[in-house]
Amino acid sequence: MVKTKAEELALEQREISVAAFFEKNRHLLGFDNPLRALSTTVKELVDNSLDACEEMKVLPEVKVEVRQVNENRFVVSVQDNGPGIVKEQIPKVFAKLLYGSKFFRMQQGRGQQGIGVSASVLYGQLTTGKPSKIISKIGKGKPGHYYELRIDIHKNEPEIVKDEIVNFELDHGTKVEIELEGKYQKGKQSVDEYLKQTAIANPHLYLIYINPLKEKIDFPRVVNNLPKEPKAIKPHPYGVEIGVLLRMLKGTKAKNLLGFFEKEFSRVSRNIAKEICDKSKVDGNMKPQEVHHDQAEALVNSIKNTKISSPPLNCLSPIGEEALLKGLQKEIKADFYGAVTRRPSVYRGFPFQVEAACVYGGELNNNSEELVRVMRFANKVPLQYQQSACAITKSAISTAWKNYGISQSKGALPTGPLVIVVHIASVWVPFTSEAKEAIAHYPEIIKEIKLALQEVGRKVGGYIRKTVKAREQAERANLFEKYIPELSGALSNLSGEKKTKIEENLNKVLKKSMKDILAGVDKEIVEEVNNNNNEKPKKEEKQSKLR
Amino acid sequence: MVKTKAEELALEQREISVAAFFEKNRHLLGFDNPLRALSTTVKELVDNSLDACEEMKVLPEVKVEVRQVNENRFVVSVQDNGPGIVKEQIPKVFAKLLYGSKFFRMQQGRGQQGIGVSASVLYGQLTTGKPSKIISKIGKGKPGHYYELRIDIHKNEPEIVKDEIVNFELDHGTKVEIELEGKYQKGKQSVDEYLKQTAIANPHLYLIYINPLKEKIDFPRVVNNLPKEPKAIKPHPYGVEIGVLLRMLKGTKAKNLLGFFEKEFSRVSRNIAKEICDKSKVDGNMKPQEVHHDQAEALVNSIKNTKISSPPLNCLSPIGEEALLKGLQKEIKADFYGAVTRRPSVYRGFPFQVEAACVYGGELNNNSEELVRVMRFANKVPLQYQQSACAITKSAISTAWKNYGISQSKGALPTGPLVIVVHIASVWVPFTSEAKEAIAHYPEIIKEIKLALQEVGRKVGGYIRKTVKAREQAERANLFEKYIPELSGALSNLSGEKKTKIEENLNKVLKKSMKDILAGVDKEIVEEVNNNNNEKPKKEEKQSKLR
Repeated sequence: MVKTKAEELALEQREISVAAFFEKNRHLLGFDNPLRALSTTVKELVDNSLDACEEMKVLPEVKVEVRQVNENRFVVSVQDNGPGIVKEQIPKVFAKLLYGSKFFRMQQGRGQQGIGVSASVLYGQLTTGKPSKIISKIGKGKPGHYYELRIDIHKNEPEIVKDEIVNFELDHGTKVEIELEGKYQKGKQSVDEYLKQTAIANPHLYLIYINPLKEKIDFPRVVNNLPKEPKAIKPHPYGVEIGVLLRMLKGTKAKNLLGFFEKEFSRVSRNIAKEICDKSKVDGNMKPQEVHHDQAEALVNSIKNTKISSPPLNCLSPIGEEALLKGLQKEIKADFYGAVTRRPSVYRGFPFQVEAACVYGGELNNNSEELVRVMRFANKVPLQYQQSACAITKSAISTAWKNYGISQSKGALPTGPLVIVVHIASVWVPFTSEAKEAIAHYPEIIKEIKLALQEVGRKVGGYIRKTVKAREQAERANLFEKYIPELSGALSNLSGEKKTKIEENLNKVLKKSMKDILAGVDKEIVEEVNNNNNEKPKKEEKQSKLR
Repeated sequence: MVKTKAEELALEQREISVAAFFEKNRHLLGFDNPLRALSTTVKELVDNSLDACEEMKVLPEVKVEVRQVNENRFVVSVQDNGPGIVKEQIPKVFAKLLYGSKFFRMQQGRGQQGIGVSASVLYGQLTTGKPSKIISKIGKGKPGHYYELRIDIHKNEPEIVKDEIVNFELDHGTKVEIELEGKYQKGKQSVDEYLKQTAIANPHLYLIYINPLKEKIDFPRVVNNLPKEPKAIKPHPYGVEIGVLLRMLKGTKAKNLLGFFEKEFSRVSRNIAKEICDKSKVDGNMKPQEVHHDQAEALVNSIKNTKISSPPLNCLSPIGEEALLKGLQKEIKADFYGAVTRRPSVYRGFPFQVEAACVYGGELNNNSEELVRVMRFANKVPLQYQQSACAITKSAISTAWKNYGISQSKGALPTGPLVIVVHIASVWVPFTSEAKEAIAHYPEIIKEIKLALQEVGRKVGGYIRKTVKAREQAERANLFEKYIPELSGALSNLSGEKKTKIEENLNKVLKKSMKDILAGVDKEIVEEVNNNNNEKPKKEEKQSKLR
């Protein structure tokens, strides 16, 4: 019998392993060129180390070494003092894509997908054929486990090349070595720059870095407390979609619908659960598994019309205004620093929080003709690539910087002696690709970033206006000073008083008023900086005061 | 015994299904907002239909209907006359992510990942809870199979809600209906615009579209031949990396290394295989499975140093200069159209080919102050989103349009009455995300796009210079015409000839030379347009000719 075309085609249909998919689509994971591949590998390993230390509530001490093997081949080695990984888990954690503990948790963390580290192992294997080497130890007196691992691409499963017991210098921790094709250079988008920015956003980290030139760079710990621990939370009802609700109803252990809402969601009391059920005319005592499609739809609609408090904030761990300012003051010598931490907000049921800062003047005056630099962070991780695709860039471009005395062309970043810093912390940061380098354009997120930028914009704008005002007044005073001798002569002729006496008095008056002016300006600036009040200042009032 | 932190954490580690991953990361698949979700769903279904028809070598006839169910809910229905899908495959093709036949083939196609359609099913289920409905029939006399399908998110496996036999109006084909949350509007990035551009790039398609306003829009077939069929090819040795080579060596059925190279790669003859083995000092008669790591590395290096012809071109199916011009002439009323199809090139072993076109003047003169529009296509599919992240945009921005008489600010697209069109055809288009809306920044691809843009840039530049020249000459002639009466009077006084006679003669001379000038210009333009010679014209020569 002759096969139909459909029957012919059916012979070719098959499952694609996620490892095979990402091997071919490596650029999705941040491995599209050797320069970026090196930087991505360091980033994935260091992010994992920081997360691990935070889980254990231990101050992180991380050693990073990038050794050059030959012209285009490097070994990246990262060691941490985290909790270590139990022997049985080591192969899957490092050599299976989409495996981990963070994906299902609603808790702020650097990693969230269970892809990053194994993607680095995959890339190393692809470009050098070499397995990755892992040592891990989970406590004093426990053995150190050494593995050499590859990924079986067709199955997306680990392939164990070596499995041995070795000595490890720490009581607990993990050391990973990956050999890969790469390219090293300093400057923008480099490993060095990534580590420097990581140190800014993580002042509790002690980082030792040995670069391919064998230079040892120390990033000392400047804060001796761990950052506030982010707690895992349950989903908030506002973000739930019907497909997810149906799935949750099927899987819950709650006996009835009221119990289901109370148990599975955050911020739902028995009363709120009753309100949701009543509004949708669904019996709160029915078994969750028996809720059918139309009822579930009614429930989703009544959730939207029920007032439920915002998600708990303890799932988020922002950098904090003070720490952010300290980090920036350490790294950039400028005239003005302003920072804000917004209140948390919610997109698709995920809490998130935006922080922003502006740094102005000082050493930045050197390149005041260029587009401003935007430093982007997500969950304390610096984002170095895909700037143009990021919601942070979009928000910065669509903020009206001219209102704050900063020049800007239409559709472009502003120009001037300014650095814009934005940090977004969330239990689930929506990145535009698995490489986690740009934030997707969710309207709720863009809105919050813009509000944060407007707030710091007003701060820097206030500073600019006042320094301009002070400079203008000083210039006027200078002009007056110039004419004092002549004026004194004229007044002396008219009044008969001695010219020197008049000149002396006029100088005194001028000095006093200049002092007042400058003191007043300083006071106003300090007030502006300390003013964390989110209300928008009345524009006309402010402007008239300045004239 | 007290658990170590590592032991505690181990309890939470688990596998993440690819469906759960994409449910949470829906923006990676093009579902970040309702407007885009609707357009992405139509796109995935239509792309699949076109691919299916091409597989069967049948001229495609596709019916698209978007019905509005309520304020923010729609049903997308797409029917094609393709080969259909065998009963057993229907559930997996539509309700399992990473499943398909195109991923493993080296052949140009619209779909390539085995994600798109099932992602639309996933999104519909998530936002409406409803299963998707599929009817498929594989031949005359065969039954029509009707399925209602959901995806089991935790397992990434199909969940069959209904499985029935029904009548289907065609001999063979597939009809898919997905209900989803969406938003409909006309204009840029709309479903309507996507279909219009699809018709431009696929002139052999007959498309009927009924939009949510119940308007029926017909896109007639203007070409009655199928486009050149792209052939599946084997990988080219230049793109092979050591990790892939090691895997291929393990899996091959070839008996020895020489046979392996001949059999598994394109463009490798027995002689070339010998050369590769000799250069790397590896015995060509050894069993492929016995090649160890260092030998494989030596082989990769010697491949790089061996001259091997470019991959076969029959795996690619460009639109073609003529078809591209026809499509554009139909859609845009302008003064000048130019197109080029570059020769195929290779990145990472994947053949690809770039086509570009420029459309200038005419109705575009209305918005000549705005940034030019860039129409982007990949494998004949219009790309509507993520313009700023795309290698095409980057290439257009970094082309020096001023050389061609078009104004452009630094770091921006040019401005003027111009539309830039770029099509990239490849056996594997490297998109920046699974949503397939922007092309990744591979240097080889950017280089080819820029060369194509320079080529069409020179064409449009030639046209601009010549029309400017013609206009200037006409202006000069006009000026001369104005003075003819006065000049004739003066000449009449000097020569004694009648003034009217002199005037008549002068007018004749003027007209004749004007005609010559204009004819010459036209001829030159036609030559320029037809000139598909890739050599760069000598700049000085051209310019001096014009002065």
